[in-house]
Amino acid sequence: MNALQFKNGQVRLADVAKPSRADEAIVRVLLSGICNTDLEIARGYAGFEGTLGHEFVGVVEEAPGRSDLLGKRVVGEINAGCGKCSLCRAHDPRHCPTRTVLGIHGRDGAHAEFLSLPMENLLAVPDEVSDEEAVFVEPLAAAYGIYEQVPLGHHTRVAIIGDGKLGLLVALSYGATAGTALLVGKHDKKLAIARNAGIETCLLKDLDRSANNSFDVVVEASGSASGFATALDLVRQRGKIVLKSTFSGEPTWAASRVVVDEITIVGSRCGRFEPALKLLGRGKLDLSPFISDEFRLTDGVRAMERAAEPGVLKVLLRP
Amino acid sequence: MNALQFKNGQVRLADVAKPSRADEAIVRVLLSGICNTDLEIARGYAGFEGTLGHEFVGVVEEAPGRSDLLGKRVVGEINAGCGKCSLCRAHDPRHCPTRTVLGIHGRDGAHAEFLSLPMENLLAVPDEVSDEEAVFVEPLAAAYGIYEQVPLGHHTRVAIIGDGKLGLLVALSYGATAGTALLVGKHDKKLAIARNAGIETCLLKDLDRSANNSFDVVVEASGSASGFATALDLVRQRGKIVLKSTFSGEPTWAASRVVVDEITIVGSRCGRFEPALKLLGRGKLDLSPFISDEFRLTDGVRAMERAAEPGVLKVLLRP
Repeated sequence: MNALQFKNGQVRLADVAKPSRADEAIVRVLLSGICNTDLEIARGYAGFEGTLGHEFVGVVEEAPGRSDLLGKRVVGEINAGCGKCSLCRAHDPRHCPTRTVLGIHGRDGAHAEFLSLPMENLLAVPDEVSDEEAVFVEPLAAAYGIYEQVPLGHHTRVAIIGDGKLGLLVALSYGATAGTALLVGKHDKKLAIARNAGIETCLLKDLDRSANNSFDVVVEASGSASGFATALDLVRQRGKIVLKSTFSGEPTWAASRVVVDEITIVGSRCGRFEPALKLLGRGKLDLSPFISDEFRLTDGVRAMERAAEPGVLKVLLRP
Repeated sequence: MNALQFKNGQVRLADVAKPSRADEAIVRVLLSGICNTDLEIARGYAGFEGTLGHEFVGVVEEAPGRSDLLGKRVVGEINAGCGKCSLCRAHDPRHCPTRTVLGIHGRDGAHAEFLSLPMENLLAVPDEVSDEEAVFVEPLAAAYGIYEQVPLGHHTRVAIIGDGKLGLLVALSYGATAGTALLVGKHDKKLAIARNAGIETCLLKDLDRSANNSFDVVVEASGSASGFATALDLVRQRGKIVLKSTFSGEPTWAASRVVVDEITIVGSRCGRFEPALKLLGRGKLDLSPFISDEFRLTDGVRAMERAAEPGVLKVLLRP
C-alpha cells in the first residue's frame, strides 16, 4: 500500500506492507490531515521514522473479536497505552510511560491507505459529522482539552495567543460553547476566520498596554517565546496560563513574575475525543475556512510542502 | 531613631524620624530577621530605597481607635493594600495592585526601632510563642502558603529543591503537618537540620535518575535555573511544580516537557500568617538551628555582611 513516510531525513511516498495485527483493528483511511507536528517530525523532531500522520477518519475493515466495529466510520485516539499501568487502567493511556503514538512515536501513522490501532482507541463518527469535519477531531480535542484542566465560565476573561490552526480552534471551540475570548495574532487574514465566527480579535502590534494584567486565563498557542512573554503580560495576578504548544528549543521566561504574582501555568497537550465529536455533532462549528487545500496521498510530498507555506492552514490527504 | 537603610547604593545605619501616622499602628520592634530579599535589595533589586526588613516581632505602642491592640506583642502581614480594590475587599491585600510592602516597596521596613503598619495587618502572638520563633512567622507563612495553593495529602510524594532557609522551612513545616518529603540540596550541613527533624534528604549530586518522573509535587525553593531543571526532572507526568523562589534574570526552561507531560507550575509567594502562627503555637517546630547569629541593630551593616556569608542561615537584629 502507499504510505507517506519520513526516513533517513526525508519525506517520500513508499510502498509498504498493509498493517496486520491480530490484536488491533485495521482501518481504511478516508481522509487524513497534516499537522504542524508532521512538519516538525520532517525536520527531525523527536527522532521518529516511519509513516507520518495522526489526524484521520476511516472505515474499520478488520476488528478481531469486535464485529460491532466492522464497517463503522471512525476516528481514533492516537495514544496506545500498555494497558497494564495505573494510567491505562484508569482509561487514560495518554500519559502511559510506554505508550506508542500514531505517526509520532513507535507506531506508523495515518498518511497511508490503512492504519492499525487498538480497538478501544476507536470512536464511531455520527452520520451528521462529515469526513471533512471528523478529520479535525484530534486537533479539536486538543483545543477543547483545556476545559478538562482549567475551569472556564461565562465570566472568565480569556485571551488566546496565536492565530495558527490550534489557536483558531481554541478560539472557535470556546466561542461555540462557553463564551467569548480575545484572539491575538499576527495575521489579519487568519484572525478574520475567528472574527467571522463572532470572536473578538486583535493584531499583536495593536495590543494595548491597558490589556496587561487583565485576563483570568491566557491560552498560549503560538509555541514561541514571544507568545509566552505576551501571555505573561496579559494574565492577571493569580491568573492561569495554559500552554498548548510545544516550543522549539528552551525559551527564556520571566519566572519571577510567575512567583511574585502567583500565576499558574498549566501544560496541556491532548484532549478527549468524545466531547470534541459531540461538539462537531451539534453543527455549530464551521471548519471549512480551516481547509486550505486537499491532495491525493500519492502527492503527499507536495502536500507537505504546501502545508509548510506561510498562511496555509489545514492540508488534507485523500488516499 | 536608628534604622538600617539602603540608599544611594549602600546599606548604612541612619538616624531617622520615628514613624507617625494617624491611620496606622506604631510598633516598637523587639526583633527582626534578615531575609535574602534584604540582601537582594542591597544589590539594587527592585529599586527600593529606605529602611530594610520585613520579618519582625514587636509591641504595639500606638493604635488609633484600636485600644485592644495597645501593648500587644504582634507580628504583621507585610503587604498593605489600598483597602478599596476587589482583592482588598476580599481581605487579601497581598495582590492589591497599588499595595506597599514593608521594607520592600514604598514603605519603610522593620530593621528599625519602630515601624508603622495598618492595624488590620497585625496579629497578636500567643504567649507560648517566643520572640525568636515569632520573628519567623513571615517566612514560615510563605513556606506554609503552599498548602493554600496545592492540595497535599499523606500519600502525596513531595520533593523540595534547595536547602536554604526557605527550602528548609518548607520541609520542616511539611514534616510537622502533612507527612514526609525528600529535601534535595547541595550542603550536607544544612540538610542535616532537616534530617534531625526526621526529613529524608539527598545531596543533589547523589540524586538517582530513578527518582525522575516520580514526584507528585516538587517545590522549587533554590531560585536557580538548575534547581528548576531538577524540579522538571523529578516531577511526574501531570504533576505539579511549586515555584517558591524568585529567580535572578530570566532562566531558560524546557517548556515543551511542561506541555507534553501536562505539568502544572504554580507560582507561590506569600502565605497567610494565621496558620503559620498556629503551627508555631503547637510547639512541634524547632527553629533554633535556623538562627546563625544575632546582632544589635546598631551593628546592622555588619549583620548584613554576615547574612551574606556562605552557609549562614538566619541572622537576627535586636534594636
